[in-house]
Amino acid sequence: MDWTQARRAERLNPSTIREILKVTERPGIVSLAGGLPSADTFPVQAMAEAAARVLRDQPREALQYAASEGYAPLREWVAAQLGRQGLRCSAEQVLITTGSQQGLDLVGKVLVDPGSRVAVEAPTYLGALQAFAPYETDFVPLVGDDEGPLPDALADARGARFAYLLPNFQNPTGRCIPAARRAALVQRAAGIGLPIVEDNPYGDLWFDEKPPPPLAAAAGDGAIYLGSFSKVLAPGLRLGYLVAPRGLYPKLLQAKQAADLHTPIFNQRVVHEVIGNGFLDRHVPTIRERYRTQRDAMRSALERHMPAGCRWNAPAGGMFFWVELPPQLDATALLPRAVEAGVAYVPGATFYSEAPRHHTLRLSFVTVPPQTIERGVALLGGVLADALAALAARKAA
Amino acid sequence: MDWTQARRAERLNPSTIREILKVTERPGIVSLAGGLPSADTFPVQAMAEAAARVLRDQPREALQYAASEGYAPLREWVAAQLGRQGLRCSAEQVLITTGSQQGLDLVGKVLVDPGSRVAVEAPTYLGALQAFAPYETDFVPLVGDDEGPLPDALADARGARFAYLLPNFQNPTGRCIPAARRAALVQRAAGIGLPIVEDNPYGDLWFDEKPPPPLAAAAGDGAIYLGSFSKVLAPGLRLGYLVAPRGLYPKLLQAKQAADLHTPIFNQRVVHEVIGNGFLDRHVPTIRERYRTQRDAMRSALERHMPAGCRWNAPAGGMFFWVELPPQLDATALLPRAVEAGVAYVPGATFYSEAPRHHTLRLSFVTVPPQTIERGVALLGGVLADALAALAARKAA
Repeated sequence: MDWTQARRAERLNPSTIREILKVTERPGIVSLAGGLPSADTFPVQAMAEAAARVLRDQPREALQYAASEGYAPLREWVAAQLGRQGLRCSAEQVLITTGSQQGLDLVGKVLVDPGSRVAVEAPTYLGALQAFAPYETDFVPLVGDDEGPLPDALADARGARFAYLLPNFQNPTGRCIPAARRAALVQRAAGIGLPIVEDNPYGDLWFDEKPPPPLAAAAGDGAIYLGSFSKVLAPGLRLGYLVAPRGLYPKLLQAKQAADLHTPIFNQRVVHEVIGNGFLDRHVPTIRERYRTQRDAMRSALERHMPAGCRWNAPAGGMFFWVELPPQLDATALLPRAVEAGVAYVPGATFYSEAPRHHTLRLSFVTVPPQTIERGVALLGGVLADALAALAARKAA
Repeated sequence: MDWTQARRAERLNPSTIREILKVTERPGIVSLAGGLPSADTFPVQAMAEAAARVLRDQPREALQYAASEGYAPLREWVAAQLGRQGLRCSAEQVLITTGSQQGLDLVGKVLVDPGSRVAVEAPTYLGALQAFAPYETDFVPLVGDDEGPLPDALADARGARFAYLLPNFQNPTGRCIPAARRAALVQRAAGIGLPIVEDNPYGDLWFDEKPPPPLAAAAGDGAIYLGSFSKVLAPGLRLGYLVAPRGLYPKLLQAKQAADLHTPIFNQRVVHEVIGNGFLDRHVPTIRERYRTQRDAMRSALERHMPAGCRWNAPAGGMFFWVELPPQLDATALLPRAVEAGVAYVPGATFYSEAPRHHTLRLSFVTVPPQTIERGVALLGGVLADALAALAARKAA
């Protein structure tokens, strides 16, 4: 039987990261490749108690079909929480999603026609590229620096359906956009009528100081905001949310309904039960503390083991270091050698919509403990030093 | 800010049923409108024990990111279970979905281009129309009779991307396709190279005898099969699955990954824990027994209370009666009067992709107990009799 596929299926491709992770999950490999939070941070006891309470007190409601918008008290919690971060919105603007990945898919579905332009950072979150690509998006990469995309770069994106931005501890670079740059980006986007889709999975994982308020706080009806419980509670529940302008909400809701009717209400009620009484105010600082220690361990390890010519910024939050190698090295080509040596990373090229910079790579510091980070980075340093020595020898020959 | 929406967003619309349900959830209304399973059938104790065990024994795995394909032991369970129903497949062909609604969305995403034709029964499941419509599908309604679509009708669908069929106790008509008609449909579809997408949420809810084997059992690589745990366990977990030909599986998997990374692994592990040791073989018969009793109650009530000229078939399984009124009555127009009288139903027009038959309606017999069914049907009978009398009086005048 010949199945005819949709044209958009050509834009669906295996995730490079998944393919890498398959290789690197061999025992004995120090994987700095994963994008997973540390399972040591999962509040298992609180989850178990909440699940038991929900199934004791609200079993019929927790196991039945539910509203596509999401569980009302959870929507109210989200609106209140965002209000404290400077993003004023009503619970009616909150749509609970099956992970914030689903939010990206719904945004693509409602806003992107074949050939529509969507502005993205270079590099940006791979999952967003994968969510938008099947809607036959033309990506417009935004030129940036260590503070994020340049406001002037937005001019190239005039007429795009939206700019997709991750202001806080971006995956993959770890970069946090400072307040002044945020203000400039919002102003420039408003000036050219460019909507913003703001993704914030990592904002709560700050180590030194809270990041500035979201772009959406200043952009108002010009922004959709995406958030997630994956990094502050646990990703296996697949619980995220989006906040949309009132004029756009109904279409996103209808897309949500068509996609999976609603996010599992059992999960929504369990999480709402867990986060009541300020649980996250006690829990998230323990994650920050753990990740800060591991960030410090990776920073020292990089300082000790990276050969000359490598460059990185210590992230002030989140989960990742972004390393620029000397430009003659290709991180994709080197990966098999690194894995052979016993360490894995994600080549940076993966995170570019186009014109990948091959001498970049992403390291996660959250899934392995400090001693293992030290060992992994030392192995990586050795591989890079060997590669540089081989290149130098070839040049000399 | 002016957000430009995708063209497909025009094909996203509020669910008529949701709008109806809002009205009918007023206290005091006997709702025969819902498509919900009875919450009395949810195995709450088994769920609570399974959730506690999963969070005690596998907390890190149950709360972490997981494979997009789904939890391997659950995929194996599905393949084995389908094998017993005559559908031989490998666990590698099983993709766990966030409810079977997501399976419909993924099928649309991978197979439907703007203007692609998709053959559907007339009437058919509203959620499927809603899932496929945003991919700018052109629906081809299939002419049918009490045994399902006519094999000859498939000729009109030559060149369509697929035919979407619900062989068992279809929503909305309750109709089950007999074995001979299944064979004829599969043969005709294969003859014209028309793939089949088979949806089977209700197949386990048979009252008298097990339905014939799935179409996919005979269609092989010419069919995608969709299943669900919503009707045999609980819909609030959003757990479904699809079985795809090996050549198509990778694209569906990539679409799944883009849509929500993976179905909540906590839910998958809890359900796998619940259904071990033949739980469903003990549990599902209790649902069948309950629904059979309520089906009988509705059948007697219809016989007692429907005015002359109404027609229905008692369903041999599932959740719904489909009632054809005298053709001069319009079920959509009558709904406000019915609600005023204290009973709600879903007008049949909702379930047609085009050319709705306005003198049809769907009644659910599973959510309210027999005495309430009796009262609801009596109220409905009164509304219909009044409407017929008014028409007769107008004609006489």
